[in-house]
Amino acid sequence: MVSIREFQNMMRRIYLARDSRRGPYGTYRWLSEELEELKEALDNGERAALQEEFADVIAWLASLANVLDVDLEKATLEKYDDRCPKCRASPCECPFRTKR
Amino acid sequence: MVSIREFQNMMRRIYLARDSRRGPYGTYRWLSEELEELKEALDNGERAALQEEFADVIAWLASLANVLDVDLEKATLEKYDDRCPKCRASPCECPFRTKR
Repeated sequence: MVSIREFQNMMRRIYLARDSRRGPYGTYRWLSEELEELKEALDNGERAALQEEFADVIAWLASLANVLDVDLEKATLEKYDDRCPKCRASPCECPFRTKR
Repeated sequence: MVSIREFQNMMRRIYLARDSRRGPYGTYRWLSEELEELKEALDNGERAALQEEFADVIAWLASLANVLDVDLEKATLEKYDDRCPKCRASPCECPFRTKR
């Protein structure tokens, strides 16, 4: 088991120097490309590739949080605390929308 | 502290019925929109909004993993195990690229 914080710290140890050099927008761009690759893996239906792309998206999200000095676990738990942040129910009871 | 797995389970309890109804592509689309909102928060430099958007991106990523029956923590730790998956060093020693 690894906490969100521990994972963010792992990314910091491995990548912070490089991520800082790349900066927030360069790091965001990379995150955005990983999300495209996740879409491709979804289209192709390749299970191993799909799992790798999930790993890459959360890794780059943690990298971006590091560059911006955001505590990803704290930010996450402040918004999602076992209930839907909008309707405050679990399971969520908000009106269902397929699109926004 | 919350593990990646616990957080994914929390999202499952709150949202799985809705996420399943929306399906992988509908859920992906929403994740993609959250990433755009993260970019807007980055542009605007509003700290509270930025933190919320980080929370939303990881929440929708966990939702998508639930819909696709991917174990996000397992997928993440299989790729990122305290070293760079490419050069196997920590800190990473890969050639530096700003773009791909």
